[in-house]
Amino acid sequence: MAVQVTESPKGTAVPTAPVTPAASGPVDLGPAAALSCRECGQRFDLGPIFACAECFGPLEVAYDLPTGDPHALRQRIEAGPNNIWRYAPLLPVPADVAAKPNLNPGLTKLVQADRLARELGVTGGLYVKDDSGNPTHSFKDRVVAIAVEAARAFGFTTLSCSSTGNLAGAVGAAAARAGFRSCVFIPHDLEAGKVVMAAVYGGELVGIEGTYDDVNRFCSELIGDPLGEGWGFVNVNLRPYYGEGSKTLAYEICEQLGWEIPDQIVIPVASGSQLTKIDKGLKELIKLGLVEDKPYKIFGAQAEGCSPVSRAFKDGHDVVRPVKPDTIAKSLAIGNPADGPYVLDIARRTGGAVEDVNDEQVVEAIKLLARTEGIFAETAGGVTVGVTRKLIESGQLDPTLTTVVLNTGDGLKTLDAVAPTTGPTATIKPSIDAFRAAGLAS
Amino acid sequence: MAVQVTESPKGTAVPTAPVTPAASGPVDLGPAAALSCRECGQRFDLGPIFACAECFGPLEVAYDLPTGDPHALRQRIEAGPNNIWRYAPLLPVPADVAAKPNLNPGLTKLVQADRLARELGVTGGLYVKDDSGNPTHSFKDRVVAIAVEAARAFGFTTLSCSSTGNLAGAVGAAAARAGFRSCVFIPHDLEAGKVVMAAVYGGELVGIEGTYDDVNRFCSELIGDPLGEGWGFVNVNLRPYYGEGSKTLAYEICEQLGWEIPDQIVIPVASGSQLTKIDKGLKELIKLGLVEDKPYKIFGAQAEGCSPVSRAFKDGHDVVRPVKPDTIAKSLAIGNPADGPYVLDIARRTGGAVEDVNDEQVVEAIKLLARTEGIFAETAGGVTVGVTRKLIESGQLDPTLTTVVLNTGDGLKTLDAVAPTTGPTATIKPSIDAFRAAGLAS
Repeated sequence: MAVQVTESPKGTAVPTAPVTPAASGPVDLGPAAALSCRECGQRFDLGPIFACAECFGPLEVAYDLPTGDPHALRQRIEAGPNNIWRYAPLLPVPADVAAKPNLNPGLTKLVQADRLARELGVTGGLYVKDDSGNPTHSFKDRVVAIAVEAARAFGFTTLSCSSTGNLAGAVGAAAARAGFRSCVFIPHDLEAGKVVMAAVYGGELVGIEGTYDDVNRFCSELIGDPLGEGWGFVNVNLRPYYGEGSKTLAYEICEQLGWEIPDQIVIPVASGSQLTKIDKGLKELIKLGLVEDKPYKIFGAQAEGCSPVSRAFKDGHDVVRPVKPDTIAKSLAIGNPADGPYVLDIARRTGGAVEDVNDEQVVEAIKLLARTEGIFAETAGGVTVGVTRKLIESGQLDPTLTTVVLNTGDGLKTLDAVAPTTGPTATIKPSIDAFRAAGLAS
Repeated sequence: MAVQVTESPKGTAVPTAPVTPAASGPVDLGPAAALSCRECGQRFDLGPIFACAECFGPLEVAYDLPTGDPHALRQRIEAGPNNIWRYAPLLPVPADVAAKPNLNPGLTKLVQADRLARELGVTGGLYVKDDSGNPTHSFKDRVVAIAVEAARAFGFTTLSCSSTGNLAGAVGAAAARAGFRSCVFIPHDLEAGKVVMAAVYGGELVGIEGTYDDVNRFCSELIGDPLGEGWGFVNVNLRPYYGEGSKTLAYEICEQLGWEIPDQIVIPVASGSQLTKIDKGLKELIKLGLVEDKPYKIFGAQAEGCSPVSRAFKDGHDVVRPVKPDTIAKSLAIGNPADGPYVLDIARRTGGAVEDVNDEQVVEAIKLLARTEGIFAETAGGVTVGVTRKLIESGQLDPTLTTVVLNTGDGLKTLDAVAPTTGPTATIKPSIDAFRAAGLAS
């Protein structure tokens, strides 16, 4: 195998990642045993593939999960690092993953939101899982962290993705830290602030003259071209591994609740992958005996301007009809969500629902969360909090049960959403008289 | 004592914080025993005061620190929550602090920065203490969290401050979470983005027609006025408590290094308070036997455009001559740093130094940290990394020793600093030919 060498500061040659993908040989991804097709069940060797060769269904990771005493496994997890690698025995990563350079996301705060609960009338316990605490301030750090380890195992040297926001920064940062080259593709007319967030990590950042769809189409072409050899596209040819990162949200929520599954979870739906993987994670915890088996309800949250799954849920359809997104919740604006049918299935099977709120309600909910709990959420967090309120009002979510609401991103990245309606209470001259006149001294 | 009541969702009256400050009675702030003057040593009862009645010197918290087996204390700390409250026995907070609503900052990552170390030629171990992981993404969450508990103890109902940036958001968020009213004063012409970050938490935000100095002068007036009764200004009448929050940086760094003091620490200098409190924290750890006593060197980092302490250090002066700040590192732009003389003393006593870098070097250092470690730092982080490089080049910092560099804030808040020089590598049409022509496919 060809090995790339670089000069260390002392002038000695040190090996870095190999140049050619080593996908043909056996790879060590811990408990990951194979890839299996979610549609037909066909199994494949672990490798950088993402669609079933038989039926074109999506592939996901199948595991040989640890057997034995659940208490011992709990203790092992609790003694692990303060990040997602504490769950390495349940993830497609090698056992020594914590020793490799990675951004080490996860173990973000599960905030007991008593003041928000009072506003919403929740009496059974309300918690916000706040993923703005991740290294680049969104849940994408979780999925990218797993993709990085898969890329390492397969011998890729470049990390790539198409993105209009959170993912670009997460990939750029993770690649920098892990010592990969990165090349991220964005629509050429992205807002200046987002370009800076994606470019600052020093990887290649390529503006594509076209829409986001054009960017995606180009990336698919590149994967099939010799030019793309050695490239791991985190959400394409590494997608089966990448997606598993979302399971850690389920693990953390349960561990942080004292190894208990909450009664209800409200999850944002973009592609739907996150919701399906959280469900997968909960089922694993039950199977392993790490938590007691109990019923739980999973709710999906969308923005009205991009609500194909919510629409299908309400209409009682199994098929999700694509839409053209038009919402301020850009991180959820996937008009043709790949995992939409699975989301419908999980919401219906667990007795949950999929609901949507309009942009005005998103902004109101962002502000509600900020003024009650001091959490400044991205628009996606406004969607979940707003949907939670709506589900309580409609009686679909039971306020007497324990409820966890996800905030998957950071308000600093979507300032524009709240800027028009967020400003100073007053502007005054620097004098006590002026302050008294403003009537703010209560 | 008057107690304010509010309506709970169920219509029953629930007591909240008392209206009148209870500063006269004894307060429970854990191991905090008194306030003592840093100049003349005079002691005062714990209360919302900040200057010595004898000599006008600054007051700081004096403790009755825990005695006994250091191993037991270590274990107690290690079993504590994953935030600054694990150090409650060493902070001016009640023993049950972790049960009160607070943003619970701290235990941010200490990143082993091997790739940055290679670029800088550090062989003794280089670590970045990354405080962008705090709830509002700056170290200010630490100091405000302590001020909140002091405000609670003194019966204040409004939290306030003057600010041009990080502090406004930290106070707004902490007040929201803890159930205080907040009223934050800012210069009226602050950038729109910063206004949103300060206003989104729903407290009062007052623009003052004048400069930042005018804002400060107005706040000092307000503290002395009956209108300001019941108000805790976190960095004025609560300053002695507030400042103690920075000690937690010292505690965490040492615990994260396996209860060892690093040989060298590079700390940004604005007012100088953070640096002096980190030194205080290290001395406490030694006194308590939590770490072994050993020599350590403390380095202060400033931006050239606001470098009064660095200037005094180089000139061999004990007095810091005020300057008019002109730098992109706005979070460090304090032209007349209150703790400047103490910083000089600590740097000289420990064998460290105070150095400065220009704005261009700040931007270069932000990018260096981003592309080596995936950490997008605020300008203050560019200052510390830039100064570290400069100190190594001049031989003042020993690259063979263990070194910790602080990043105290988040690049998302100072995008303007890097925007002019950070953009796409290329812009191309969505075709393989165009990509090949761009020469990025290596």
